[in-house]
Amino acid sequence: MLLLGFSIIILAGAFLLKLPVASASREPISFVDALFTATSAACVTGLVVFDTGSHFSTFGHWVILMLVQIGGIGFMTMATLFALILRRRISLRERLILQESLNQGSIEGLVRLVRKVIFYALMIELVGTVLYTVRFAFDMPFGQAVYHGVFHAISVFNNAGFDLSGNSGSFSQYASDLYINAVSMGLIVLGGFGFIVLADLFEIRRKKKFSLHTKVVLSVSAVLIAVGAVIILIFEFTNTRSIGDESFGHKALSALFHSVTTRSAGVTTGDIADYRQATQFFMIILMFIGASPGSTGGGIKTTTFAVLVGAVLAMIRGKEDVVLFRFRLAQERVYKAVTVTLFCIGIVLLGTMILATTEDASFLKILFEATSAFGTVGLSMGLTGSLTVAGKLTIIFLMFMGRLGPLTLTYALGPKPGRVLYRHAEGKIIIG
Amino acid sequence: MLLLGFSIIILAGAFLLKLPVASASREPISFVDALFTATSAACVTGLVVFDTGSHFSTFGHWVILMLVQIGGIGFMTMATLFALILRRRISLRERLILQESLNQGSIEGLVRLVRKVIFYALMIELVGTVLYTVRFAFDMPFGQAVYHGVFHAISVFNNAGFDLSGNSGSFSQYASDLYINAVSMGLIVLGGFGFIVLADLFEIRRKKKFSLHTKVVLSVSAVLIAVGAVIILIFEFTNTRSIGDESFGHKALSALFHSVTTRSAGVTTGDIADYRQATQFFMIILMFIGASPGSTGGGIKTTTFAVLVGAVLAMIRGKEDVVLFRFRLAQERVYKAVTVTLFCIGIVLLGTMILATTEDASFLKILFEATSAFGTVGLSMGLTGSLTVAGKLTIIFLMFMGRLGPLTLTYALGPKPGRVLYRHAEGKIIIG
Ligand SMILES: [K+]
Ligand SMILES: [K+]
Repeated sequence: MLLLGFSIIILAGAFLLKLPVASASREPISFVDALFTATSAACVTGLVVFDTGSHFSTFGHWVILMLVQIGGIGFMTMATLFALILRRRISLRERLILQESLNQGSIEGLVRLVRKVIFYALMIELVGTVLYTVRFAFDMPFGQAVYHGVFHAISVFNNAGFDLSGNSGSFSQYASDLYINAVSMGLIVLGGFGFIVLADLFEIRRKKKFSLHTKVVLSVSAVLIAVGAVIILIFEFTNTRSIGDESFGHKALSALFHSVTTRSAGVTTGDIADYRQATQFFMIILMFIGASPGSTGGGIKTTTFAVLVGAVLAMIRGKEDVVLFRFRLAQERVYKAVTVTLFCIGIVLLGTMILATTEDASFLKILFEATSAFGTVGLSMGLTGSLTVAGKLTIIFLMFMGRLGPLTLTYALGPKPGRVLYRHAEGKIIIG
Repeated sequence: MLLLGFSIIILAGAFLLKLPVASASREPISFVDALFTATSAACVTGLVVFDTGSHFSTFGHWVILMLVQIGGIGFMTMATLFALILRRRISLRERLILQESLNQGSIEGLVRLVRKVIFYALMIELVGTVLYTVRFAFDMPFGQAVYHGVFHAISVFNNAGFDLSGNSGSFSQYASDLYINAVSMGLIVLGGFGFIVLADLFEIRRKKKFSLHTKVVLSVSAVLIAVGAVIILIFEFTNTRSIGDESFGHKALSALFHSVTTRSAGVTTGDIADYRQATQFFMIILMFIGASPGSTGGGIKTTTFAVLVGAVLAMIRGKEDVVLFRFRLAQERVYKAVTVTLFCIGIVLLGTMILATTEDASFLKILFEATSAFGTVGLSMGLTGSLTVAGKLTIIFLMFMGRLGPLTLTYALGPKPGRVLYRHAEGKIIIG
């Protein structure tokens, strides 16, 4: 149901983007390109075959923004909202998925939560719009500044990675602008936290205490961003093609921004293709981890990563229980985390494998593109523009799987009582 | 204990190889190179910084062969044998590891099994020696043919990948020699099955029925080899730098051989560096899967791969149980397989990450080298010869982890009764 609904929205978006009125030149784009752009928008990825600013008309921009909002603020919450508007009861199965995704102990508080979620998201986007517009007004007419403000606030908060800058480096012109950097990183991080964490954050005065989920998300995000920034800074410190010639402040800001953007924002202030191989590979790993569950970002999720780290620590210490913040995780949840991760690695490798046969580019570029698509990050070493049709379809597949895969898989791995009619006898086999 | 013993053997080997008498030129090699060669031999990897045939003396060759025998026919079985010779009781912990590794339901039959294991291995090596010598005698004096016969039979059966050919393409001169190809593939495959499977195979008349383990190993190996050969053939069919210009028979034989060699033999009949990127990446995945448990080969093992495939199939079908050959696998074993795989991916990525900073080579070359080292395969796209000291140490680490990691990890993941003093309260966290 959810996969189908999402597919319909993407197809509708592709249809709209295929209209002559969506192109700035009034020349309709090819169906594959329309599908690619619609998928990239609805999956909040941000990989683009055309420059968004110059190739699409204002109508095209609004279609993309709508897709970003639907895909970002959450297909999940939207689906519930639609169900409420249509006064149709959502099925128990969907409720359970929502419950899992929103980590709410009871189904009762769900509707209230969905309303709250959308309220928070729109409020943050509004604040982002104002903050962006104030700065953009220095560089362009006020009307255009508002337009850019709205577009970028929505795109950045939803970790969508679309921009109107007209160059591949998206926010490159603001690379050393502390204000734009701060606003953007704020929006990315808030969008990547996921709504449960946002709700916990905004209501901390009333609740007094963070949930385990929020603690894990906040600490893992902080550690990933800090470690990522330090490592990018070290690796790129003397790379004159990227930030080697800049001042220390610029270097540090750039490293921090690119660490944050791998959470799955996809906007940049520099050209990733100029980075060192080691940095690029490190960013691939960061992109693969991605943002937090129930957020506008992708990847295997910070919580999954936390469980993996916990499992490794437990192993090293010879303990059987995986413990996070003094809470033991159920064996079944650890299994879920490991399986989801492995499944995601499998999909990325499959996509990489296909792209390695269809595209004529360096392997790292291909792996970067595949991971970026799957993590719905939208960073690119420059492969997107030159993709073959088969390559575009592969990236479309990766973006779709990346946005919906982990969630539906997590659901599929959940306990399903009453479905096992008979079980086979247990067999023994040697592992490792 | 096992890790320590293995380390001591490697260090002793490095010391011997460092002696002037081990070099053909009587110039002692550097300690890092000696350590690298000793690790490569003891971990039956076959990555070499020097050409084995010309750089080492006959004494050096025998040191390498001894290390290969110890590392290949099995540190595990050797350790038990030593324990028997020294009339020292092996600890229960080691017995349990052996039991796990040899899949024997009872500890009682273990000693008999170890004797049998060594008997079979030596018999196969003897047959291999005779078969090789017969063919080599056409190309060189009889004494040298015997010498080459012994060396290659031991090296190939133990999936060690060392050769005396004097060129990087190891068996390139026999690329279209059906006899050498057949003998080599036979030795590789038998060595890669593991001793439980060999015992099952040799005693099928008495036992009448294969164990689940043997069924899984045989079928997965067959499928991997067949699929691997077909895909390599397709990818390389028109690649004139590799086999594109050869006859169809030569092409098919070469594809089959290179599919077999990724099981973790490491001998080649062509230059992998000339292959297409897609083929190279595909071979990386094959190398990562590797051979079977308790064998002379490395990788995550065919059985682990079978469990992963079974888990994916179960997921797709919405079943909870992972079933292989109508046997249900315990959830705990599936968890083991998934965790071991993920851990191995982590190690390979860590090694790749380090190599990406220390080496100046294309990313795919680095990933290939890291996976080859970890899978103790020994294939290379040519990076080994130009490694920095830091790079060599990284590869040494990868080979060591690759040989001992999966086994010790599998043991570490096993149930350990009586070690949990207290447990934390269970916490909930969202995955995916
Ligand atoms: K994105
Ligand atoms: K090998």
